Amino acid sequence: MNFEFQNPTRIVFGAGVLSRLGEVAREGGRRALLVIGGGSVKRNGAFDRAVASLKAAGVGVVAFEGVEPNPRLATVVRGAQLAKAEQCDLVIALGGGSVMDAAKVMAATVYYEGDPWEMMVHSPIGTRLPTRALPIITVPTLAATGSEMNMGAVITNEQRVEKSYVIADCLYPWVALVDPALTLTVPADQTAYGICDLMTHVTEGYFNGDDGTPLQDRFAEGVILTAMEWGPKAVANGQDLEARAQVQWASVVALNGWVQAGANAVGFPVHMIEHTISAIHDVAHGAGLAVVNPAWMRAAARIRPNRFAQFSRRIFGLEQPDVLACALEGVARFEGFLGGIGCPTRLSQLGLDGTLIERYARETLQAIHDESGCLPGRPAMREAEVIDLLRTAL
Amino acid sequence: MNFEFQNPTRIVFGAGVLSRLGEVAREGGRRALLVIGGGSVKRNGAFDRAVASLKAAGVGVVAFEGVEPNPRLATVVRGAQLAKAEQCDLVIALGGGSVMDAAKVMAATVYYEGDPWEMMVHSPIGTRLPTRALPIITVPTLAATGSEMNMGAVITNEQRVEKSYVIADCLYPWVALVDPALTLTVPADQTAYGICDLMTHVTEGYFNGDDGTPLQDRFAEGVILTAMEWGPKAVANGQDLEARAQVQWASVVALNGWVQAGANAVGFPVHMIEHTISAIHDVAHGAGLAVVNPAWMRAAARIRPNRFAQFSRRIFGLEQPDVLACALEGVARFEGFLGGIGCPTRLSQLGLDGTLIERYARETLQAIHDESGCLPGRPAMREAEVIDLLRTAL
Repeated sequence: MNFEFQNPTRIVFGAGVLSRLGEVAREGGRRALLVIGGGSVKRNGAFDRAVASLKAAGVGVVAFEGVEPNPRLATVVRGAQLAKAEQCDLVIALGGGSVMDAAKVMAATVYYEGDPWEMMVHSPIGTRLPTRALPIITVPTLAATGSEMNMGAVITNEQRVEKSYVIADCLYPWVALVDPALTLTVPADQTAYGICDLMTHVTEGYFNGDDGTPLQDRFAEGVILTAMEWGPKAVANGQDLEARAQVQWASVVALNGWVQAGANAVGFPVHMIEHTISAIHDVAHGAGLAVVNPAWMRAAARIRPNRFAQFSRRIFGLEQPDVLACALEGVARFEGFLGGIGCPTRLSQLGLDGTLIERYARETLQAIHDESGCLPGRPAMREAEVIDLLRTAL
Repeated sequence: MNFEFQNPTRIVFGAGVLSRLGEVAREGGRRALLVIGGGSVKRNGAFDRAVASLKAAGVGVVAFEGVEPNPRLATVVRGAQLAKAEQCDLVIALGGGSVMDAAKVMAATVYYEGDPWEMMVHSPIGTRLPTRALPIITVPTLAATGSEMNMGAVITNEQRVEKSYVIADCLYPWVALVDPALTLTVPADQTAYGICDLMTHVTEGYFNGDDGTPLQDRFAEGVILTAMEWGPKAVANGQDLEARAQVQWASVVALNGWVQAGANAVGFPVHMIEHTISAIHDVAHGAGLAVVNPAWMRAAARIRPNRFAQFSRRIFGLEQPDVLACALEGVARFEGFLGGIGCPTRLSQLGLDGTLIERYARETLQAIHDESGCLPGRPAMREAEVIDLLRTAL
């Protein structure tokens, strides 16, 4: 139980805090690259309100539009070029996880020498981490990735048909301005995917971390229980501001390091498999996780039934005397919860017939494997085991 | 549910990390004021190891010895004078909460114009917060206060016979170097007081915070459950390094803001009452809390039985249908837990006969009261109510 932790991001949380964007930004820069996605923030007025707040505070705005879901390296490079050409001294992300991740890597690319794909864990010529970035303000419009308050970003290399990620201290946002009112217009399906995403962030650490981290276990369980209590309310009534706020706070905490500190997860196997699938098919990340996570859990529960039985007891109050039965029933309940809020939990519900399962497994293992060629996790899995678990998700 | 939060402290946690003190300190300064208490760190070797690590890294050491329990303003002033005279550019606290709190305020006093008592919440001429401090490294030798990773400090004004506190951004330690091996020699009674201290930090927020903070509730419960699982092991066998590590991590998290963020506690009434008692009698802070907290809870549970019944259900698994009975049984169990690990839970066990109860209440209310003259908390309490609750702790 040896670890280091530091998260310097300042969080400003609450309904209506978007109106404080200019006042906050002014402390960090004078000309902002304002990064957005496909236009929903223009349609719902958030973009105009952000621009108005920035201009009222005397902060210049250079808009960069069009970050796609599963954001691409070429988009990141274009954004960084624009920031440089326009002499921006601040990057603001107004959008979901894709927009935030792209903006974070843009902020680092401004200072990075050479191909920014070399920042990535899966850089074919070795990872060269960024050490400096423009100050970043994240303004999430979706409760999901937790990117607003952490130092990670996931980028897709469209030429290599590969998804990878970078984790670097300089990517911690300077400020996370989290306004749950911005999520009121998120459709029910996207809301549900976000809930799955945040829950998966904590289950990955919970099931793949060190033994003997009782406090981190309780925190992870707390995030899951809160998401299960408030998530369905946010899905059922998108205008329920309290439910939106509870879900969004849970999504921030799910991946800002508070839950993971000291747990030392050996891998994020569900994310790795899902990244392969969504790099090939461009499915929504949270929807892909809803398919992969229960399937992975079913397989892992057979190897570590005690761990999963603890999950079953503490999350669902299950008390079956047979440990494996208790473990598997918890996984089934978890899958049932995801299905109940409208997530796909089978490949067929993603429109995938399973003919590429071998490819998903192969490319996942190509992207990441331990010294013995296995997918890192608890348990570490061989390619054949990844194929087997995906077959249970047909 | 609007709030801001930022905790920039870097934590380095693990058995043996004391040996990294020099390497860490070198990044922040060249000459350290090394603040210690009554000498236990000299007897057990921690002081010598700290000095050796600093010297090996080329960091100069100016020792300041003799910070007393319930550290005094005059001590703080002497430490700051020494830091200035010796041109220290770094303050290192090696000790318990008293040493850390004193060192934090010393680091700010170096830059502070005028009487440092004016930093305090109870400054008679209005609070003037410090805005700058020398970088601070905390090396706790006790699992208790959480001071190692927060921006608060409690100081006693010996002339005014008053205890007050300061909360300021510049008091966040730069690094918290937390080595649970340093706590192996803490006697059983002090270990138990530390456990009570950390548990009380989260119960104060839990019972006096906003309604509708489900995730913070879960986190608080997680800290309490972890302390209840591992605390008795650390008390029973001080050499149990895993128990020491779990308790110490719980103590860090109990008051580094992760549990409290967004909960907006209206007061810390148990601490306020205890501060009065320990300012008069110089009792150990954690022991005083073990007496005051159950008594306060018994009184508050009658006003807010649903809240306390949630505590009873989630901490002790109680399911009495009568809400008040359930609430009070949880308080009794909590008091029983504290007594079971060797904490005093009655004034008589502190050697106090109760003749000064009226004075405790009066001086607590003099030190802090809301607009209607009540002790802030849920419920806010009049002086007579504070007297009544203390009578239940005779």
